[in-house]
Amino acid sequence: MVPRYARPEMTAIWEAKNRFFIWWQIEVFAAEAMGKIGMIPAEDAATIRKAYDDNAIGEIDVEAIDEIEKVTKHDVIAFLTWAGEKLGPERRWLHQGMTSSDVLDTSLAVQLTQAADILIADLEQLLEVLKRRAFEHKLTPTIGRSHGIHAEPVTFGLKMAQAYAEFDRNLSRLKAAREEIATCAISGAVGTFANVDPRVEEHVAKELGLTPEPTSTQVIPRDRHAAFFATLGVIASSIERLAVEVRHLQRTEVLEAEEYFSKGQKGSSAMPHKRNPILTENLTGLARMVRSAVVPAMENVALWHERDISHSSVERFIGPDATITLDFALARLTGVMDKLLVYPERMMKNMDRMGGLIHSQRVLLALTQAGLSREDAYAIVQRNAMKVWQSDGELQLLDLLKADRDVTERIAPEKLEESFDLDYHLRRVDTIFERVFGEGATAD
Amino acid sequence: MVPRYARPEMTAIWEAKNRFFIWWQIEVFAAEAMGKIGMIPAEDAATIRKAYDDNAIGEIDVEAIDEIEKVTKHDVIAFLTWAGEKLGPERRWLHQGMTSSDVLDTSLAVQLTQAADILIADLEQLLEVLKRRAFEHKLTPTIGRSHGIHAEPVTFGLKMAQAYAEFDRNLSRLKAAREEIATCAISGAVGTFANVDPRVEEHVAKELGLTPEPTSTQVIPRDRHAAFFATLGVIASSIERLAVEVRHLQRTEVLEAEEYFSKGQKGSSAMPHKRNPILTENLTGLARMVRSAVVPAMENVALWHERDISHSSVERFIGPDATITLDFALARLTGVMDKLLVYPERMMKNMDRMGGLIHSQRVLLALTQAGLSREDAYAIVQRNAMKVWQSDGELQLLDLLKADRDVTERIAPEKLEESFDLDYHLRRVDTIFERVFGEGATAD
Amino acid sequence: MVPRYARPEMTAIWEAKNRFFIWWQIEVFAAEAMGKIGMIPAEDAATIRKAYDDNAIGEIDVEAIDEIEKVTKHDVIAFLTWAGEKLGPERRWLHQGMTSSDVLDTSLAVQLTQAADILIADLEQLLEVLKRRAFEHKLTPTIGRSHGIHAEPVTFGLKMAQAYAEFDRNLSRLKAAREEIATCAISGAVGTFANVDPRVEEHVAKELGLTPEPTSTQVIPRDRHAAFFATLGVIASSIERLAVEVRHLQRTEVLEAEEYFSKGQKGSSAMPHKRNPILTENLTGLARMVRSAVVPAMENVALWHERDISHSSVERFIGPDATITLDFALARLTGVMDKLLVYPERMMKNMDRMGGLIHSQRVLLALTQAGLSREDAYAIVQRNAMKVWQSDGELQLLDLLKADRDVTERIAPEKLEESFDLDYHLRRVDTIFERVFGEGATAD
Amino acid sequence: MVPRYARPEMTAIWEAKNRFFIWWQIEVFAAEAMGKIGMIPAEDAATIRKAYDDNAIGEIDVEAIDEIEKVTKHDVIAFLTWAGEKLGPERRWLHQGMTSSDVLDTSLAVQLTQAADILIADLEQLLEVLKRRAFEHKLTPTIGRSHGIHAEPVTFGLKMAQAYAEFDRNLSRLKAAREEIATCAISGAVGTFANVDPRVEEHVAKELGLTPEPTSTQVIPRDRHAAFFATLGVIASSIERLAVEVRHLQRTEVLEAEEYFSKGQKGSSAMPHKRNPILTENLTGLARMVRSAVVPAMENVALWHERDISHSSVERFIGPDATITLDFALARLTGVMDKLLVYPERMMKNMDRMGGLIHSQRVLLALTQAGLSREDAYAIVQRNAMKVWQSDGELQLLDLLKADRDVTERIAPEKLEESFDLDYHLRRVDTIFERVFGEGATAD
Repeated sequence: MVPRYARPEMTAIWEAKNRFFIWWQIEVFAAEAMGKIGMIPAEDAATIRKAYDDNAIGEIDVEAIDEIEKVTKHDVIAFLTWAGEKLGPERRWLHQGMTSSDVLDTSLAVQLTQAADILIADLEQLLEVLKRRAFEHKLTPTIGRSHGIHAEPVTFGLKMAQAYAEFDRNLSRLKAAREEIATCAISGAVGTFANVDPRVEEHVAKELGLTPEPTSTQVIPRDRHAAFFATLGVIASSIERLAVEVRHLQRTEVLEAEEYFSKGQKGSSAMPHKRNPILTENLTGLARMVRSAVVPAMENVALWHERDISHSSVERFIGPDATITLDFALARLTGVMDKLLVYPERMMKNMDRMGGLIHSQRVLLALTQAGLSREDAYAIVQRNAMKVWQSDGELQLLDLLKADRDVTERIAPEKLEESFDLDYHLRRVDTIFERVFGEGATAD
Repeated sequence: MVPRYARPEMTAIWEAKNRFFIWWQIEVFAAEAMGKIGMIPAEDAATIRKAYDDNAIGEIDVEAIDEIEKVTKHDVIAFLTWAGEKLGPERRWLHQGMTSSDVLDTSLAVQLTQAADILIADLEQLLEVLKRRAFEHKLTPTIGRSHGIHAEPVTFGLKMAQAYAEFDRNLSRLKAAREEIATCAISGAVGTFANVDPRVEEHVAKELGLTPEPTSTQVIPRDRHAAFFATLGVIASSIERLAVEVRHLQRTEVLEAEEYFSKGQKGSSAMPHKRNPILTENLTGLARMVRSAVVPAMENVALWHERDISHSSVERFIGPDATITLDFALARLTGVMDKLLVYPERMMKNMDRMGGLIHSQRVLLALTQAGLSREDAYAIVQRNAMKVWQSDGELQLLDLLKADRDVTERIAPEKLEESFDLDYHLRRVDTIFERVFGEGATAD
Repeated sequence: MVPRYARPEMTAIWEAKNRFFIWWQIEVFAAEAMGKIGMIPAEDAATIRKAYDDNAIGEIDVEAIDEIEKVTKHDVIAFLTWAGEKLGPERRWLHQGMTSSDVLDTSLAVQLTQAADILIADLEQLLEVLKRRAFEHKLTPTIGRSHGIHAEPVTFGLKMAQAYAEFDRNLSRLKAAREEIATCAISGAVGTFANVDPRVEEHVAKELGLTPEPTSTQVIPRDRHAAFFATLGVIASSIERLAVEVRHLQRTEVLEAEEYFSKGQKGSSAMPHKRNPILTENLTGLARMVRSAVVPAMENVALWHERDISHSSVERFIGPDATITLDFALARLTGVMDKLLVYPERMMKNMDRMGGLIHSQRVLLALTQAGLSREDAYAIVQRNAMKVWQSDGELQLLDLLKADRDVTERIAPEKLEESFDLDYHLRRVDTIFERVFGEGATAD
Repeated sequence: MVPRYARPEMTAIWEAKNRFFIWWQIEVFAAEAMGKIGMIPAEDAATIRKAYDDNAIGEIDVEAIDEIEKVTKHDVIAFLTWAGEKLGPERRWLHQGMTSSDVLDTSLAVQLTQAADILIADLEQLLEVLKRRAFEHKLTPTIGRSHGIHAEPVTFGLKMAQAYAEFDRNLSRLKAAREEIATCAISGAVGTFANVDPRVEEHVAKELGLTPEPTSTQVIPRDRHAAFFATLGVIASSIERLAVEVRHLQRTEVLEAEEYFSKGQKGSSAMPHKRNPILTENLTGLARMVRSAVVPAMENVALWHERDISHSSVERFIGPDATITLDFALARLTGVMDKLLVYPERMMKNMDRMGGLIHSQRVLLALTQAGLSREDAYAIVQRNAMKVWQSDGELQLLDLLKADRDVTERIAPEKLEESFDLDYHLRRVDTIFERVFGEGATAD
């Protein structure tokens, strides 16, 4: 975790205090269940539950627990010792028949679902912004580019709609990934429930908003976590895509959009054009980092037999790092898109600099429809287009065609002008918007 | 693609013949739709459709198309030329208003869904085998190991049930991933449907069993493919897990299971014990390869603007490689698990070699329940356990405990023997099997 | 391996014929050594060597060997059987005391060094081209960009010199990586030389141009291969860097350079500007693929004990794929850079479109040196710069400054003009070229 | 960075204090050089140098600098402001003609070389330990295993020698990687030295123990860093290999070695055998993490034009994380190997459990040398070996052979016993040790 790429709410999930509090919940809910089914005395279970409800152990005292751990060399035992000190003799029933991994893995599941919930909210906010910008620029024409080369017109709103659709898919993926890791295991040393009744697991799961892991070994199987982190990697890749789009649009020669830059803000130098897309460049790097968690998470799956502990160190890194970084990145991207400065005039200017060449396809079509063979039509368009191209922005294709008898013999001037109509390219934007945002959707 | 790790059915999907045939389908269905909505003459559309239904173009002639491509330098045009030669003048309506990517991306979608269907069938077969082996060994006791060290008893059936549950999750993931990439794009040069009606896309999608891509650029967005290949990577990691389990079990010192070895089969040397788990070692390597497709697939997402073509070369590799290799690996794993030689006696022997130490936890519990403090109980068990351990298999914990007055004073011999009862550890196997396979499930 | 991204010379290295021929060499040289040290009869060893020198076994008959393998199920034995048939009774000494891995791993070492030699030659050709283009455009001014935004002038030759320096480092890395994998192991079943004298290894190594592996297990340790493939990954990343540079330069709005496009060549459409940088886009994708070999190669290192065979399937993929693809990519990049169309006028035009803003730093400096505080100087430059910027290419900074009394009071016009001198930025190009290409270096 | 996997010396390198101090050094040495060549007044340069020598700015006050950065929003400017306050008017010459990246990239180079130096020392300590253990167990016989299956004898010292050779290669790689990133760039905004003399760079480089970067853009090219982190990934993979070896040896059924466990140390339970190889499991996980830095480092190479800043966030993570984690892992591995409990008796016992089957190869050879065909010899050995194998440790191959007339007719009993001589397998250990450790090398 790098502090400058971290936000407090997500970071708090990974702090010791939250972890210990979840452990406390697990132990309390487990005791409660044991009381119900007679594994331990009902009244002791009730006392423990009451201690939880009354917050009898008070604030989690991380330092105190750490101090105990220095002696016990075992974090779960240290926690239990600390918590036990706040209780009466019923403390003996805590953790009955359970194994450390029951607490650790279930706790990780809670942390990851908490993290997923924040990420889901992040995505929802990003979607809201993208939707607003999409409708705002629904019909703002801009050149579509393939291979970085001008192709045919699109609208800036379409770019936003595509980003919306992509992040909407990511939202669905993330919700599915959240389900993947939202399981609870209280199944004992090798997952056989030898010393703990499966009903304990069921109760704890329910209280924590998890589902019982159908079959754990000593641990919750790590294919779940691999799927979760892989999903974060896909989301990060989508972030990179939109970030790269902004970076391209902000290039000096393109300058169709810019990361927000307040009026009073001092540039990095005396060069007012030197407004660097540093936020989206940063997002490009952060995407690489979130993605770097995917392979280790996958390498974690093949634990030996009923478990080895090689996954643990990996998760101490990628658990916080990938979620904190992705949360930060989503928020940053939302901010960038929210305030993105969009320059429709410049878009039009860039589109026009090709002298109307972007319409050559339509002229070709019109000539074919007027009866010319595709080859002949092509030759006619091509020779005019080449002149326009060589003039580097001086000549206009429409003018040349109007002066070309092979054209005018076949197409009336007004018909020709129609071929240069931008609206032609935009007439299905409505359909696309309906597909993406639903019928009758509006910006709000 | 490495031929020795490839099976013909999956390989055929990636051969030119299949690809060209899908292109043919796309063009035919597109023409049909254009006929319906009046973009092209209805009778010409009907003629094209009939040519398809009657198989008028006959076998796809890959060589002929390749020959044409040498001239056109463009695969889609080469194909259209070849197909056109088999048609009458209606050939002119093929590909109307479409762009190459409409064909290429939709074709890739079809190939990937075909591949996914095979992989789904593979998983289903693997699940069937795992289920059978699980029920077969539902109550075959074997030692559970954490950290490679004996812990407490499980059953071999439980190991199979866990693998079943994991691959069942993989089946769900794969089905979801299949949906991800089963989309069709016929949206023109920059995705605006400028020259092609969205109803064409809808029709082609329906005919091919795909859904229309809500909004494509020139291409289908690559976050879909990233999610798909990431799922293959998770499945591969699960394969690795089970492969590593078999490799461990086959170790000379463990030898609780072995890859199948026919009676007459000659070992690699004069050493009959030298039966190497080469299939599962091979699977471990193949898992690495399938996983290696994940990062490039994610790097493919951030295409520039409405598309660049950097993804294409990556997909020419990972499309075939990852699916063919995973298909082969799943089939190989199914074969290994189907015929796996399982040695229950050896499992018991290995379990027994610890002189009953694996039951020490339960004795500890019994002593505590008999009123001893945990510390005192621990000391008693520990001193006896240590003797067993130092004897390296000569002494039995039960014998020593029966001779220890601190124990016998508190626990009757029959009660003590109960603590050494293996069945205690197996009593919840039914519950776990119900969770995994459903209530009342049996091997068939 | 994808045929379209493969060149014959590199592909041949990975064909069965070459592999079998290397095996033949290993067996022959081993027998020769055994003869020398008396492990086998000297005259039999001589006969075997003579069979090699006279090419007595003739062409390697891959089909025949494959046919035998179908029976033996073992490739090395199949080869030995086939080769043995061409020999007399001395055949019995072939492979004496050796293990299959002795042949396989040494053979892989030979293949990888052969591949490395081609890659080294590829790099040398690329370097030659880069050097030529560097000197050709040593003083061709072009704008330097940070964050995609105009910064200060550089030359196109400098860009080439930087690429040269980077690939020259890659050449050194590759040579070092070649040494890494150029080792020979003939050490028997577990690397103890129990049945084969170390002098055999030394002789084979020498004959094959390898060095003896100081200590092998059954196999040559895979950290060597990991280091090798990691180096290929670094080279691929450098390819990506230069490819991305070209892609940027070819953008419609930038168009300072283009992949070669022959005069007669037909564009992809009627749009003459639609010259897509598809070769460098392709290189971007190929770079991802070469890089994807790195992680599996590293995962291959941790073989179990004296060896497991999990690495083998990985190497069957990445051995050919990474080297063939990198060879192709280097050759393609060399072709692209060799014929790259460079447009100095457009570079100048792009540079000029900022109205001289790129010189604002120097004016600032001049004002400071004339005694103004940095803050005051900044304010003066900034207010003029802003006007230029807002004019979008209409106004020139120099004109405005000449009309600003706060400036003219302090700096004489000719001095001011000096600040706008492009040559100022180029005066250390010589030094940089000397550093990169050596003192007195020229294009040849 | 995860605190529990971090050691203070390495961590300190990445703390703000060290970074600022390096910045201070860069600025001072740059000013000194500028004084020498007359870019700035010599006496002011001398004053700055003296301030450095006298430590006139005192301790780096990170908090104060951070406070200033809140205003300036720029770390380098914040530092310069803070440092400037401690100086007189000569402060104005600090950073003259330089760009932030000159400071940042050179500073990173210093940090990485400092980190590399620690890692080099780590490797040297590990090598020392491995060498000692190698000589200690030079002739401790143990079974060599391929595929996890018993093969032929080796010695435990050989295992250590192989690890030594591997880490010795890693030491060489790391030293080369250190050279890669030990360069200095003081070349201005786009690397042209427009406003700063190359001699400044040369001087700063020399003072900091770096070499001048032959040609930087705005930044030091990132192929250097990619090569560096790739090397760390290779080293991590070697750590994983040795860690996995220890984990295997510590398995309950194998137990030929164990991570150190003090006599008094309480096991994790009442089960004295439950000594888990948690340190080496942890190392397995840490290896995955170090390796995860490789791909992002390679993705960092393709910066746009003269630089974008996407690499920066990546390096803020992987710079500290990969070096701190690797340092910790190397130290942990050194500790594990230093104190590893080695059990030669158990090794012998494991080797013996195959009833002498591991010698069957030699018997086969002896029979062949006695004139039998390989096929016949094989059949004889095989039928006896099979009996031994089926007896599961009860029968001994030597006994059976001595009772087999087909054998005794051809081989005298004492000759036969020779075939079972363990020393035969160990006779070339000396040679291997000489190759690895040098002629005449001893443990010290």
